[in-house]
Amino acid sequence: MKKVAVILSGCGVFDGSEIHESVLVLLALDRANAKAVCAAPDVEQYQVVNHLTRQPVRNERRNVLVESARIARGNIIPLNQLKVSEVDAVILPGGLGAAQNLSSFALSKDQFEVHPEVARVLQEAHLAGKPIGFVCIAPAIAARLFGGKKVEVTIGNDPATAARLKGFGARHVNCTVHNVVVDKSLKIASTPAYMLANRITEVEAGVTKLVQAVLEMI
Amino acid sequence: MKKVAVILSGCGVFDGSEIHESVLVLLALDRANAKAVCAAPDVEQYQVVNHLTRQPVRNERRNVLVESARIARGNIIPLNQLKVSEVDAVILPGGLGAAQNLSSFALSKDQFEVHPEVARVLQEAHLAGKPIGFVCIAPAIAARLFGGKKVEVTIGNDPATAARLKGFGARHVNCTVHNVVVDKSLKIASTPAYMLANRITEVEAGVTKLVQAVLEMI
Repeated sequence: MKKVAVILSGCGVFDGSEIHESVLVLLALDRANAKAVCAAPDVEQYQVVNHLTRQPVRNERRNVLVESARIARGNIIPLNQLKVSEVDAVILPGGLGAAQNLSSFALSKDQFEVHPEVARVLQEAHLAGKPIGFVCIAPAIAARLFGGKKVEVTIGNDPATAARLKGFGARHVNCTVHNVVVDKSLKIASTPAYMLANRITEVEAGVTKLVQAVLEMI
Repeated sequence: MKKVAVILSGCGVFDGSEIHESVLVLLALDRANAKAVCAAPDVEQYQVVNHLTRQPVRNERRNVLVESARIARGNIIPLNQLKVSEVDAVILPGGLGAAQNLSSFALSKDQFEVHPEVARVLQEAHLAGKPIGFVCIAPAIAARLFGGKKVEVTIGNDPATAARLKGFGARHVNCTVHNVVVDKSLKIASTPAYMLANRITEVEAGVTKLVQAVLEMI
């Protein structure tokens, strides 16, 4: 049975992992009879956003691992305990958590950092020839880590975001919500999901193709 | 386009709506080209549970509507603003929130109360001949409200829980995770989901049948 690490970044589109994307990744993996190994960094969230008002909540603190555990129904490990040798691939769902908790992409306009444990896992996986899938805004992390290898990715079709990814050396390809971009030489797949989706079935279509592409490259 | 109210109870299996069940209800509705209208009561959660340790968090307070908004990506209304005349059916996902926030089923061993706004919506829908779907532990609410009409429901096959539902007059039918129990005369459907499921594809199977059954009874 193939094992795939799913790196979560909290629980909710505006301050953590996008919930629909995360659940649909888990669904597509289970459909393919692959086992998901959920993991998240044991760090404080950049912020907590009230998802009703869409405003940040001052003075409230939540932990990325603890909130991610909601999506994983408690079946989750701290990212620093994830052994890349024990999984066959890695997938990162989107949501602002990918750009605020797993990296600082949303917090600056130019350079940004990837959380050291996220970088470790992705670089180890890449070095070991294991495929990696990036959903929604998460391909920014691929551009930051693998731009030097001219990784081909998509974040949909937003020119400003695409330009920023190109600034790290990545090649950006416009892509519809129903499709996936696969860099076969680097074994990296990406799909726009809620960068473009207007409804959940659109997310399901792209995410399912992404998961299939990742599993095929194992 | 059919409109279906989805009543959420927070965000996370141990203190709110079960996330997978909720997302898969939304997915099945969208697949059927039905529009989901998410709603939740604007009340404090009974408790906050750390989903990593599975222990209650003392002194932390969260709001059911605000947390449910995470699953709904902000597209949610307070339950007291939900007009039953504007929807064609109602569905309640499971999770402990259904038994702690929408009702007090998990908080007593005998009698329990249903949140007044939940009771209003379900009774109005029922009186108007609109179908209602209950997932996982939520059928306890159906037993409490419609036991006097001998509603036929399932919560899977747990004898103790089934006995408690029968105590309110409900007829309980054992059901596998892949199936749905439909009380056609009362237009009430139920499916066990994570009362029995060991994997997310099992939840998808039962929830999809439940949504189809609800939509067919409109």
